[in-house]
Amino acid sequence: MRAIVFEEWKQFPTLKEVRKPEAGPGEVLLKVAGAGACHSDVSIFQDFTAEMPGNMKAGFTLGHENSGWVDSVGEGVSGVNIGEAYLVYGPVGCGRCKACSRGQDTYCENAATNPYAGIGLGRDGGMAEYVAVPARNLIPLGDADPIAAAPLADAALTPYHAIKGALPHLNAGGRFALVVGLGGLGQIAVQILKALTGATIIATDMKPEAMAKAEEAGAITVPSGPDQVRKIREITGGRGVDAAFDFVGVTPTLATATASMAQGGKLVVVGIAGGVHEWSFFTTPYESVITNTYWGTIEELHEVVDMYRAGQITPEIETYSLEDGLEAYRKMVAGKLNARAVIVPHQA
Amino acid sequence: MRAIVFEEWKQFPTLKEVRKPEAGPGEVLLKVAGAGACHSDVSIFQDFTAEMPGNMKAGFTLGHENSGWVDSVGEGVSGVNIGEAYLVYGPVGCGRCKACSRGQDTYCENAATNPYAGIGLGRDGGMAEYVAVPARNLIPLGDADPIAAAPLADAALTPYHAIKGALPHLNAGGRFALVVGLGGLGQIAVQILKALTGATIIATDMKPEAMAKAEEAGAITVPSGPDQVRKIREITGGRGVDAAFDFVGVTPTLATATASMAQGGKLVVVGIAGGVHEWSFFTTPYESVITNTYWGTIEELHEVVDMYRAGQITPEIETYSLEDGLEAYRKMVAGKLNARAVIVPHQA
Amino acid sequence: MRAIVFEEWKQFPTLKEVRKPEAGPGEVLLKVAGAGACHSDVSIFQDFTAEMPGNMKAGFTLGHENSGWVDSVGEGVSGVNIGEAYLVYGPVGCGRCKACSRGQDTYCENAATNPYAGIGLGRDGGMAEYVAVPARNLIPLGDADPIAAAPLADAALTPYHAIKGALPHLNAGGRFALVVGLGGLGQIAVQILKALTGATIIATDMKPEAMAKAEEAGAITVPSGPDQVRKIREITGGRGVDAAFDFVGVTPTLATATASMAQGGKLVVVGIAGGVHEWSFFTTPYESVITNTYWGTIEELHEVVDMYRAGQITPEIETYSLEDGLEAYRKMVAGKLNARAVIVPHQA
Amino acid sequence: MRAIVFEEWKQFPTLKEVRKPEAGPGEVLLKVAGAGACHSDVSIFQDFTAEMPGNMKAGFTLGHENSGWVDSVGEGVSGVNIGEAYLVYGPVGCGRCKACSRGQDTYCENAATNPYAGIGLGRDGGMAEYVAVPARNLIPLGDADPIAAAPLADAALTPYHAIKGALPHLNAGGRFALVVGLGGLGQIAVQILKALTGATIIATDMKPEAMAKAEEAGAITVPSGPDQVRKIREITGGRGVDAAFDFVGVTPTLATATASMAQGGKLVVVGIAGGVHEWSFFTTPYESVITNTYWGTIEELHEVVDMYRAGQITPEIETYSLEDGLEAYRKMVAGKLNARAVIVPHQA
Repeated sequence: MRAIVFEEWKQFPTLKEVRKPEAGPGEVLLKVAGAGACHSDVSIFQDFTAEMPGNMKAGFTLGHENSGWVDSVGEGVSGVNIGEAYLVYGPVGCGRCKACSRGQDTYCENAATNPYAGIGLGRDGGMAEYVAVPARNLIPLGDADPIAAAPLADAALTPYHAIKGALPHLNAGGRFALVVGLGGLGQIAVQILKALTGATIIATDMKPEAMAKAEEAGAITVPSGPDQVRKIREITGGRGVDAAFDFVGVTPTLATATASMAQGGKLVVVGIAGGVHEWSFFTTPYESVITNTYWGTIEELHEVVDMYRAGQITPEIETYSLEDGLEAYRKMVAGKLNARAVIVPHQA
Repeated sequence: MRAIVFEEWKQFPTLKEVRKPEAGPGEVLLKVAGAGACHSDVSIFQDFTAEMPGNMKAGFTLGHENSGWVDSVGEGVSGVNIGEAYLVYGPVGCGRCKACSRGQDTYCENAATNPYAGIGLGRDGGMAEYVAVPARNLIPLGDADPIAAAPLADAALTPYHAIKGALPHLNAGGRFALVVGLGGLGQIAVQILKALTGATIIATDMKPEAMAKAEEAGAITVPSGPDQVRKIREITGGRGVDAAFDFVGVTPTLATATASMAQGGKLVVVGIAGGVHEWSFFTTPYESVITNTYWGTIEELHEVVDMYRAGQITPEIETYSLEDGLEAYRKMVAGKLNARAVIVPHQA
Repeated sequence: MRAIVFEEWKQFPTLKEVRKPEAGPGEVLLKVAGAGACHSDVSIFQDFTAEMPGNMKAGFTLGHENSGWVDSVGEGVSGVNIGEAYLVYGPVGCGRCKACSRGQDTYCENAATNPYAGIGLGRDGGMAEYVAVPARNLIPLGDADPIAAAPLADAALTPYHAIKGALPHLNAGGRFALVVGLGGLGQIAVQILKALTGATIIATDMKPEAMAKAEEAGAITVPSGPDQVRKIREITGGRGVDAAFDFVGVTPTLATATASMAQGGKLVVVGIAGGVHEWSFFTTPYESVITNTYWGTIEELHEVVDMYRAGQITPEIETYSLEDGLEAYRKMVAGKLNARAVIVPHQA
Repeated sequence: MRAIVFEEWKQFPTLKEVRKPEAGPGEVLLKVAGAGACHSDVSIFQDFTAEMPGNMKAGFTLGHENSGWVDSVGEGVSGVNIGEAYLVYGPVGCGRCKACSRGQDTYCENAATNPYAGIGLGRDGGMAEYVAVPARNLIPLGDADPIAAAPLADAALTPYHAIKGALPHLNAGGRFALVVGLGGLGQIAVQILKALTGATIIATDMKPEAMAKAEEAGAITVPSGPDQVRKIREITGGRGVDAAFDFVGVTPTLATATASMAQGGKLVVVGIAGGVHEWSFFTTPYESVITNTYWGTIEELHEVVDMYRAGQITPEIETYSLEDGLEAYRKMVAGKLNARAVIVPHQA
């Protein structure tokens, strides 16, 4: 079968013929419906080296946002029927530590000795005609469209996890949330905040189109500029925001977010741009916190699918055939994608 | 000035001339904007006796849902300006116990020795031209309409408090809430759930008009009848509801609500009809809870006002002059009110 | 190998020769160190019938509180070494639903179609020389004694889960906890409450020896009798207890516990005696809750082992050889066990 | 009467004759039992200027950790009896904002326009024979020693509030807490952690005597030095601590604490030395947070008194007469106090 393979560090992936996988014990083989292309794939083939943490070895099929239909079932798997559609939870940990036991393979205590970080992350992913995945990683999609669902596995699960951990800060009348960076994840963050909270959502981005889209989804937008923090505070009546989500993570966005916080607020930095914030007792509103986050749990992905099926999350996608998959990555590198690219190996 | 006074146990109130109150130390005198008529007023003059708990003594002006404009300010009060509009938190506790210290006078540890339970509850209330209240009980209304705001003090605060305590059960995708009883509080409960959660809201009432109103506010309705629990469970995919709010509280509504619960769900009984539920280990979905509730906190009333000002809560009201106030109570007793009656002593 | 087998409904188990199991894919074969005998085993062979829920079929080795040393490892299992000691999480769900994904197989959404409820619960358990278990169910014991550890899997995990869910009620100065029923689980509950909270622990039982043991562990005891609730309330300064754990669950213990609750308290019924409590709005301290509970999660069993290794939980045990195992059950039926019976198949 | 008065910025206080205060409306006059001397008093008379926030004006009696016996009662105060002993909550906010309504005057929304920050903080404090305080600020001491209780009002309430907000991180078996800085507040923090959690407490300080004292209270200590973080992590099995409390707050202690954190841990900086931590996504264990804190709430001070009365908190004090009070401050400035200095105006 054909697959988009990351063959060597610092080298663009290739579309090539590989052996069709089989479902091992405890696994299920999926006929791939959709495989989302994520910016972290670009980091993998463009920036990472063999020395990176996570134990990835070059030489695997990309794609960690996957959906598909059951093609065959490995030994010891029951209750999964041929032809049913599933979304796939990407991370794969040791399965036995505290974190894995609660379905949070992202924080596996044995990450340092695991053979890979997940499906499409060291282990063959979904940018292929078929993908084998642990049965435990399957999330049933029912009759929901599996192709548009694919990006949920990361582009929705990541903001969902970040927001869920901040809900105690937003669970009341009169609360305010800030979303910095309105790319794919930021837009879905606005949708999730709109659905799950009564907070006034303030959003910002460099691109006017991205801000217009967030406004349609119910956010108030504040453009960048020297006056930005003052405007954000003004919307909140001076108090600041109760929760902020920075999907960029450069030093200036951290500065905007930290300067906009209310007492007792929570800032979750999602974007991995590596910016720095100089924390000090006296510049921090009392009891406000700053933290980072990484992806989410299996149970949360079930909840994301519940929201998708209820029409509360609508990922915007562009579909590409497997043949055009490398073109999708080229556009991504060039910053020319307008929506999440989903590789669809089997056209209707 | 004129006031609607509860003069004697088991006796209908009278409209009479009383002395205009003054703002004592720590108090503020309000020119009343609106005073909501609540069903519990009927309990006071129709059902209660001198032996009831709460230390109420007959002989006080009714009205515990009050708003008004500052008329004068007592000794030791600062930061409150003549003419500003405020909503009034009704309960008045000892002010020094743990519960009062956190603004939850409803659960004052010294309730048994307090001289009264609150404003309009043993102490003169708002069904008069003027009312004196502790400055601590004031919630600023800004430029929001104070007349429609009056019922918020109880008819919105009570469901808000009940729902806020259940939000951890509703804070995720794919959750379900049940509202039983769609009178004034139940309708506002639907509005609050819609604003603050992403849950599917299932609502029920005997009256089709009440159900139609809840549907407009975003609920799915299920009529009464032998099939009701089955239909509720069907909407939830068999799982049951994660939170239920019973605004009636008779044995049959408790039966419906308990039979509709999901594992880990929370049932809050708000209605004081005194129904009974026979709790047993084996008939209770694992880790689901049942509890009661009473009114709310000062801070929560601030949050209710935030929601009102944001347009998330819209109480439906009928206004009456002070002269027509007794007529409002007569209609209430006869079950002929179509919305919350608000007494408006000073017509525009 | 020899095993204690439950062969037929309503029939006492037999010690017999069975085939030594093998570790299937994803499984580990343990040489059994200890297998705790639990009262629910008696329910299985004495009370249950083929019509009981849980899909158990008669004809399996008993023992759902197991520890052992790794003997061999099945396909697909890594990071587990021969000879290492592990405790075993007993419940086994579908592995793919929300509950299983968070390591809470007890509440598996597919329980109705699963082939069994757990190890020693429909699937062969640990009352044998060897037992095969899913690798995911292993909790490392390090150098801690695996024999005394065996009962932790149920007799400590069950109260731990019940208490953990009530900790928000106990997390402050001046709190009170009530433990009703001081058998094996109740005694461990006292130890856990002592270690994890600063609450004053009030304990009660019919047996003076059991109360003496609880006192040694740091509890204040109150004997049964008509005056019991008054005495409990007196200890709390009249306020009542913030959390109560009923390990009996008959109607009179439910009555004692519910009558002892503080406002906002939590009563967790652990004992499955099926007692009834007539819940009503007016007899319930405001916002206090009543609920049931069942066993615990994999992560919680890790935490229980952490407490065991730190000396915070010390199960009291009596050891029996496999040959004497039936005798242990006979004593249990006769009410003559003084401590948790642990079957030790391989004597030192 | 005599009082220790802070008369002018940057000037050492004086012992002088002042007018005996009276209890205004809503106030109580206390005959002072004890008034703790706090390091922040030194900041007030040594470091602060008229431009400091908090609206303090020079010219008030010091002492914000106060206890006393009721001498007389102002208008509108009931339920408080002459001669009863009370501890005093120091902060005094507007009384009407959200924060004040929940008894958290420390975070009063109108702090910028309030006339003072609290008792002994702009308003006359307890270093005098008598002090007038709002009735709402009284915490009953019952028959507990009021002199040793005085420091609880700040030296115990501050760590209590910091720890209470971190309890969700410590509420399980196998957790670890770190206390950096073992002065008065740090020692009480160890006592509180010991009482309220089952965590292993790791403590550190520059002074061996301080570490010895913490060990007696149940902590494991790790001396300063280049190896410190490695040793702390070793105790935690490599994982890091779940909660850390930095009572110093200089850049090096922040570095130690942040480098010792576990995934999902919480660092609360209590010490106001103004150190800086350079926060970045990649140097922060996932989902660990850093925050600051300030004093506590009225309800929490009730809970602190509950712990004091239960023997769970034992402040170490040195008593001084009013005449020797300035000497206590001189020793404090010179770093020669060995325990909390409590001024006792009325010797037995």
